[in-house]
Amino acid sequence: MSQDLKEAALEYHAKPRPGKLSVEITKPTKTSRDLSLAYSPGVAEPVREIAKDPENAYKYTAKGNLVAVISDGSAILGLGNLGPLASKPVMEGKGVLFKRFAGIDVFDIEVNSESPQAFIETVERIADTFGGINLEDIKAPECFEIERALIEKCNVPIFHDDQHGTAIVTAAGMINALELQGKRLKRRGWSAWVPVLPLLPAKILISCGIRSENIFMLDRKGVIHSGRDDLNQYKAMFANDTDKRTLDDAIDGADVFLGLSGPDLLTAEQLKKMAPKPIVFACSNPDPEISPEIALATRDDLIMATGRSDYPNQVNNVLGFPFIFRGALDVRATAINEEMKVAAVNAIRELAKEPVPQEICEAYGVESFEFGKEYIIPKPMDVRLLEVVPAAVARAAVDSGVARNPYPAHYPLKSMDDII
Amino acid sequence: MSQDLKEAALEYHAKPRPGKLSVEITKPTKTSRDLSLAYSPGVAEPVREIAKDPENAYKYTAKGNLVAVISDGSAILGLGNLGPLASKPVMEGKGVLFKRFAGIDVFDIEVNSESPQAFIETVERIADTFGGINLEDIKAPECFEIERALIEKCNVPIFHDDQHGTAIVTAAGMINALELQGKRLKRRGWSAWVPVLPLLPAKILISCGIRSENIFMLDRKGVIHSGRDDLNQYKAMFANDTDKRTLDDAIDGADVFLGLSGPDLLTAEQLKKMAPKPIVFACSNPDPEISPEIALATRDDLIMATGRSDYPNQVNNVLGFPFIFRGALDVRATAINEEMKVAAVNAIRELAKEPVPQEICEAYGVESFEFGKEYIIPKPMDVRLLEVVPAAVARAAVDSGVARNPYPAHYPLKSMDDII
Repeated sequence: MSQDLKEAALEYHAKPRPGKLSVEITKPTKTSRDLSLAYSPGVAEPVREIAKDPENAYKYTAKGNLVAVISDGSAILGLGNLGPLASKPVMEGKGVLFKRFAGIDVFDIEVNSESPQAFIETVERIADTFGGINLEDIKAPECFEIERALIEKCNVPIFHDDQHGTAIVTAAGMINALELQGKRLKRRGWSAWVPVLPLLPAKILISCGIRSENIFMLDRKGVIHSGRDDLNQYKAMFANDTDKRTLDDAIDGADVFLGLSGPDLLTAEQLKKMAPKPIVFACSNPDPEISPEIALATRDDLIMATGRSDYPNQVNNVLGFPFIFRGALDVRATAINEEMKVAAVNAIRELAKEPVPQEICEAYGVESFEFGKEYIIPKPMDVRLLEVVPAAVARAAVDSGVARNPYPAHYPLKSMDDII
Repeated sequence: MSQDLKEAALEYHAKPRPGKLSVEITKPTKTSRDLSLAYSPGVAEPVREIAKDPENAYKYTAKGNLVAVISDGSAILGLGNLGPLASKPVMEGKGVLFKRFAGIDVFDIEVNSESPQAFIETVERIADTFGGINLEDIKAPECFEIERALIEKCNVPIFHDDQHGTAIVTAAGMINALELQGKRLKRRGWSAWVPVLPLLPAKILISCGIRSENIFMLDRKGVIHSGRDDLNQYKAMFANDTDKRTLDDAIDGADVFLGLSGPDLLTAEQLKKMAPKPIVFACSNPDPEISPEIALATRDDLIMATGRSDYPNQVNNVLGFPFIFRGALDVRATAINEEMKVAAVNAIRELAKEPVPQEICEAYGVESFEFGKEYIIPKPMDVRLLEVVPAAVARAAVDSGVARNPYPAHYPLKSMDDII
């Protein structure tokens, strides 16, 4: 990060008042009468209604549009375990994105917990406050146990964006890239480098039709294969029966490299050994697994994506989570299930094939975006995401039986003004 | 509550969108550049600064103006134990008052806890998220244990408004009433009826100079005296060596009756037995311990206060908590200690002696308010509370050594616009 950007970021966070979020009143409070409705004695009525039927909380409180962004600060961005308080700017930032892109209110909650069990208990006890919970920046493998337990214990959707959001957006871009390169999803012989953290992109790609025996996953010790006895349960799910052992082995003839792990892990030599028309997703941020300059100079038949906004094909979670929660909240889904995730993948990737309106191109200072090697996935500022993703997710929730409300009459959303 | 008010309250909470609060973005988010400051990659800078020094959380996040209003729903208003979710409208309502009167952002958190210990653990773990914590509607005696433990465990001020806020505002009105009736604080022989819940008004009155042997506290079994062996530690603090046993005994010749317990506990006969120029605070809501009509018809030398806005002398917590937290937050107090509470009492009661500006009288549709029997305490809509109470509380915090910041340069606050 440049010194200039660092200083601008500190200034942005500090001035004119600290932080990025405030809580505002949405009802009249000018007169004594107003206050007697907002608080005592009037407030007793909604209390009684909710005591009669908990569902009335969605009618009389902010719960239905309220998501908790919760972290223990154990894996903050690429910075590591800096503790809950240091994660607060990130969690508030996530709140900014939820609001900016999908009108969702967010309480950021930083949890100081001594164990996954303590974290789970804490979130479980406060969960009723919210319409949904987005877990954030929690280190693996603890995050898997935490997510699984909370899904089981809570009545509201639980979503770990670093896992599932990344997975969904990556899968959307990947499937489009495969299509553009003329590679069929179910063909044998493409491999993926997937490190410890994001096991989920592989899982969602499998949900989208990629055969698991076609994926070679790697961790620090090399290829995850069925002969290894050092795999935790999460890695073990992806262990293939193969004699490949290193990235050099796995990359030989591979169609795809997918990295979300760290800088400079893929060499130009390795890239040369990949199959014709290869796909490289080098999503480590800010320094990709291979620099786009080197990669594109090495292979001109390549499709390349990164996590960075200053190159084409940015794989950015903001394409997913605000809209996925929007859809889930608007049908009061009890979960964000696999069907809803796949629906989000398809809505995002199909949007990339639509003609891009002029105002979106202008926001990025370009003349046009055309579905192709340099535009495989929508841009974050594409307002049409609000139209297509929540609608697809809500429909999938209804169809898969996890929605407590019908498909919303006011869907698809045409603009932020349509949000209730 | 009238049917009309009930319906208006439900409508108010439901339309045009559910609830009373939203979370809003306070910084620019229009461009990609804005978002790169609010979130990745710029957000890494404040994260690093907070990891270096936790105090920087006050500089770069919303923490310093953020209060959690937390309840387990075990004692909601006068409605009883209806559970955490049903308390949400009240907690959001409290957030409305914090914002409306003192510009403080509130996250309401409803905790589903199986024990006081579980509640304490939960709040302790999320406490760093906030600049202060306001406990609300938690039943006694558990609330005492919870408050004590959280004060010990947390770095931010913990305040149980039902206890301390009520105590402060009651004490402010009471001391003014004593003065108006020509009664000295330290005189022998006035008594107070104080039921199980609000032990604290007695405690703060003692802090303000009233001798504990002059207070007779009563619970369901009668006078709390040193011969009883059924007292918990909280009641035992107020046990006097006396032969009075019933309210009839205690009220005989008493200067003061203070009730925060339930309707129709004080009869006209008992009121007749009180000392000349008696004081009755019948604060049970909505039905006072004795109706003002009966009381004032029985004794014309009476000063009467209630918890209701439709009679003179409303004892309303909103005179206290927003401004007490404002002062505590603005000097980053580590606690709201006895000195700060007494400072709040004095600031509130002294304000009642100042001439009341025309616009405040107009807000209440009266020609004037004059310090006297029917105006012993400021009105909730008195904007001057923002000027005097935070300043007094902040000064007391600095003087008593619990402030981490100096007395604010921008104090006293003249209007909401002065809040940083």
